Amino acid sequence: MYRTHTCGELNIEHTGRQVTLAGWVQTVRKFGSITFVDLRDRYGITQLLFGETLNPRLDQAPLGREFVLQVTGTVTERSNKNKNIPTGDIEITVSDFKVLNAAKTPPFTIQDDTDGGDELRMKYRYLDLRRNAVKQHLELRYRVNRSVRNFLDSRGFMDIETPFLIKSTPEGARDFVVPSRMNPNEFYALPQSPQTFKQLLMVSGYDRYYQIVKCFRDEDLRADRQPEFTQIDCEMSFVEQEDILNTFEDMMKHVFREIRGITFNEPFPRMTWDEAMEFYGNDKPDIRFDMKLVNLTGTVKGRGFKVFDEAELVVAIAAKGCSEYTRKQLDELTEWVKRPQIGMNGLIYVKYNTDGTLKSSVDKFFDEEQLKAWAAQCQAQPGDLLLVLAGREERTRKAMSELRLEMGERLGLRNKNEFKPLWVIDFPLFEYAEEEQRWVARHHPFTSPKPDQLGLMDDPSRYGQIKANAYDIVLNGTEVGGGSIRIFQRDLQEKMFAALGMSPEEAAHKFGFLLGAFEYGAPPHGGIAFGFDRLCALLGGSESIRDFIAFPKNNSGRDVMLDAPSGIDQAQLDELKIALVK
Amino acid sequence: MYRTHTCGELNIEHTGRQVTLAGWVQTVRKFGSITFVDLRDRYGITQLLFGETLNPRLDQAPLGREFVLQVTGTVTERSNKNKNIPTGDIEITVSDFKVLNAAKTPPFTIQDDTDGGDELRMKYRYLDLRRNAVKQHLELRYRVNRSVRNFLDSRGFMDIETPFLIKSTPEGARDFVVPSRMNPNEFYALPQSPQTFKQLLMVSGYDRYYQIVKCFRDEDLRADRQPEFTQIDCEMSFVEQEDILNTFEDMMKHVFREIRGITFNEPFPRMTWDEAMEFYGNDKPDIRFDMKLVNLTGTVKGRGFKVFDEAELVVAIAAKGCSEYTRKQLDELTEWVKRPQIGMNGLIYVKYNTDGTLKSSVDKFFDEEQLKAWAAQCQAQPGDLLLVLAGREERTRKAMSELRLEMGERLGLRNKNEFKPLWVIDFPLFEYAEEEQRWVARHHPFTSPKPDQLGLMDDPSRYGQIKANAYDIVLNGTEVGGGSIRIFQRDLQEKMFAALGMSPEEAAHKFGFLLGAFEYGAPPHGGIAFGFDRLCALLGGSESIRDFIAFPKNNSGRDVMLDAPSGIDQAQLDELKIALVK
Repeated sequence: MYRTHTCGELNIEHTGRQVTLAGWVQTVRKFGSITFVDLRDRYGITQLLFGETLNPRLDQAPLGREFVLQVTGTVTERSNKNKNIPTGDIEITVSDFKVLNAAKTPPFTIQDDTDGGDELRMKYRYLDLRRNAVKQHLELRYRVNRSVRNFLDSRGFMDIETPFLIKSTPEGARDFVVPSRMNPNEFYALPQSPQTFKQLLMVSGYDRYYQIVKCFRDEDLRADRQPEFTQIDCEMSFVEQEDILNTFEDMMKHVFREIRGITFNEPFPRMTWDEAMEFYGNDKPDIRFDMKLVNLTGTVKGRGFKVFDEAELVVAIAAKGCSEYTRKQLDELTEWVKRPQIGMNGLIYVKYNTDGTLKSSVDKFFDEEQLKAWAAQCQAQPGDLLLVLAGREERTRKAMSELRLEMGERLGLRNKNEFKPLWVIDFPLFEYAEEEQRWVARHHPFTSPKPDQLGLMDDPSRYGQIKANAYDIVLNGTEVGGGSIRIFQRDLQEKMFAALGMSPEEAAHKFGFLLGAFEYGAPPHGGIAFGFDRLCALLGGSESIRDFIAFPKNNSGRDVMLDAPSGIDQAQLDELKIALVK
Repeated sequence: MYRTHTCGELNIEHTGRQVTLAGWVQTVRKFGSITFVDLRDRYGITQLLFGETLNPRLDQAPLGREFVLQVTGTVTERSNKNKNIPTGDIEITVSDFKVLNAAKTPPFTIQDDTDGGDELRMKYRYLDLRRNAVKQHLELRYRVNRSVRNFLDSRGFMDIETPFLIKSTPEGARDFVVPSRMNPNEFYALPQSPQTFKQLLMVSGYDRYYQIVKCFRDEDLRADRQPEFTQIDCEMSFVEQEDILNTFEDMMKHVFREIRGITFNEPFPRMTWDEAMEFYGNDKPDIRFDMKLVNLTGTVKGRGFKVFDEAELVVAIAAKGCSEYTRKQLDELTEWVKRPQIGMNGLIYVKYNTDGTLKSSVDKFFDEEQLKAWAAQCQAQPGDLLLVLAGREERTRKAMSELRLEMGERLGLRNKNEFKPLWVIDFPLFEYAEEEQRWVARHHPFTSPKPDQLGLMDDPSRYGQIKANAYDIVLNGTEVGGGSIRIFQRDLQEKMFAALGMSPEEAAHKFGFLLGAFEYGAPPHGGIAFGFDRLCALLGGSESIRDFIAFPKNNSGRDVMLDAPSGIDQAQLDELKIALVK
């Protein structure tokens, strides 16, 4: 036994007790012949007092930051109490100590407010993990994990492990593949999700399944996307969409209550995909603030203003209380929408002044009455600023969606500690992939069309109209989960694969096991999967998932601490019967 | 909502209630105009009565086995009650029904006692999973998972996810590697265990870590070994071996109590590795029965019997009550030890007859008095049978260990529902790998030598004598867990790598991150990992781990249901910049 107590549990009640602690040296402060050391472990910090009698020995063992120390001593009431920490009323008057391990000076300070840059902290991740801020993130992740498990256990869901070495069935994102020494020239794939397995488990009668499980995508990496990520993966049998929405709304409420102490008394709002696109310009609306998109196309056309007349879409938002934006601020916004990521040619504004007058950047083409009509359509009040974009429909809607978020940010309407979840439902079944010139599944190929639209599956010209029993749960402008009611009939599944351009042979080769399973008594079923990393980040009030992963990869998919991926021996390649192509 | 109740919950209290159930048709029995159907779901079986008035409609919808059915009807008391199932007092008088999905006749019967062979059941695993026997295995696995988590949570262990895409560091078993499109010609490896990560987490101060996690080994497959398997992986800081043994003995007791209702009041026995080898011939003794190995080498040599005189080891067991074994039985045992897997040249026996006389297969060389001395040494009683093997030390000990288990089996001493756990401690640090002509780590290269034997690390000729703070937990002759106190000093870890024949450059290349971490304040730590699949199998009274895995691979590492591994497209290979070698 290296310790009798942790560094987080001693208080005034323990005064006079002899104790042994072990931990890391956080700080060393010398005052003449007396030395104070803050000793840190996972549970807290305790002040150690090395008095005069011990002093010679302490001098012989110079204590640096992050040294690992074991001390024995007596719990003593402190004269100078620290009310900020639970152990702040006491200190340990040290009678004996031992340096268990020395430490070099860390490359950055182990503090909330560290001086270490991103790359350095990734390289020494084991030191970064010591910082209190990072530890709190991992503790939150662990608590969310437990909270989710407890809820799902209580609802009769069974945790069933599905395999990691599966079959490559490229459709959508790219698979990571794994060569096999035992079966040369053949490859396993790592799962992008346990989708087909959880469906098979429903066919097997397991009724309610869950797993908190790693998934893998060999995708081009973007900021905050990891090649391996964790899902809360769930599936239920004999359910309709309503059952799933209710169950997982309950789960989210349970987690919010346990993790953040927030109680939602009302049902989460629901919005159709069409509504989300119309009013927010995207399918994951941030509803912490209003500022809805207003379509002005019909109102503004035909007045001789070429930009509007040639536009597929003219769309506006009303920014509350921004009528006094300066020229400089407006120029800045204009530059903002012209950036390549947004891609607009310009921004039109209308100031609805507090005195009721209106002033716009298009006064040459529109008189005050006309501008007033726009303002009315946007439900703007005196003091507001209308921002108007015009152009190709898809790009313009997307740009306005971004501008809305940007204005929300500038107006301080996106508080990280306010949570506004909602369901977005009735997603389109398909979307058209321009590059590939084919229809692809919006969610995945196992999603069922709405029953009353099954007929449209026979007419490719109407694929775009088909809606699915598919749903996302969106939190503060981020999709945290999504799912669907699945196809459970072989003929419909075959029709779906065909619609996606898969030949019957290809479908049989890739998904023969699932098609086969549907012939032996498949029940109606559906499910959902949550992005666990992202859910934890949002619950922690952060947007960076990397902060909530113990050992994340960088933006190039590298683990800079391990230096992985890396080259492997020729002998390993030979055994695997593969060769490198330079 | 497809149902108001499950097929497992209705009883006599529900009589008169209108209910809706959904599930699978287990059996259909017709009696004139009445049809009985047993409807099955995850929760149980309920009898349905299709009466006369419904009959025409039922005739139009021929119900086969495994059809998916939704029925509405009234809960009615049964005349012919079935006391074997919880719902046996009632049946549902069906008023309405719907076939939700038809089913082809399954390729084998969905019954405990199925007619399906192994390969067929693997191919249609989703049907095999419907069988009650298999479902109970997965339910047990889920219950063990929860039980372990609850225990570890209550002891302050944190579940922390470690990465799956790591660095290849071949040492011991082979890594599966994963080519990377983003980093061409470089490979990730899948973890054989999270060993180094859990050690880094200790360096980071997380104090108590656990994970129930998939691990991967690209090993030659043997019966009942899977390329992917699950570990309960744990690590603790500031502990000595005793702390770890106590903690995880408590965990095992908790699990036995919750899963099997078995209470262990006594501490688990502990045996040194030396004792295990001496008395049981292996390091995972089955102590459900005694029949210890007795070394007769000193006693039997020099009597002119060449087999003994030339042997490195002469070893015996006394099989209780077997003195009346027939010639045929003894011949059979002789053949058994001569099989290539055992590899002995012959078997010597001594019958200690119930009348006190002795009769042996070596009467020519040894008189009754001498045989009596052997019997005494083996603590044999009249009625027992001594079995003696002689030859090269290692092979002979191993053979006797196997023969002991075989005799235990024949004598019915290996009851699957009796549980005899024990700790085997003080493992050797190294073992000599004859093929490679070098020392390898018995447990792994991170295991610490016993502190008082650190000096021996400087003398390769004494490597064989060094014992480690390493321990296994053994249950009924199977290792279910193992671990060690780890090295936490850079210089000792470097010495260890050097002892294993690793150059400083190689050590730095493979494990630089760990050596580095040890310089920044690494605490003393140690841990353990349990084979979760095997633990579940043993708790379920089975020896086959495959029965306790939802989607196992076969003995060639193939998933015959998915047909994985399989070939991949040339386009995928091109993207990965690898080529196949034929």
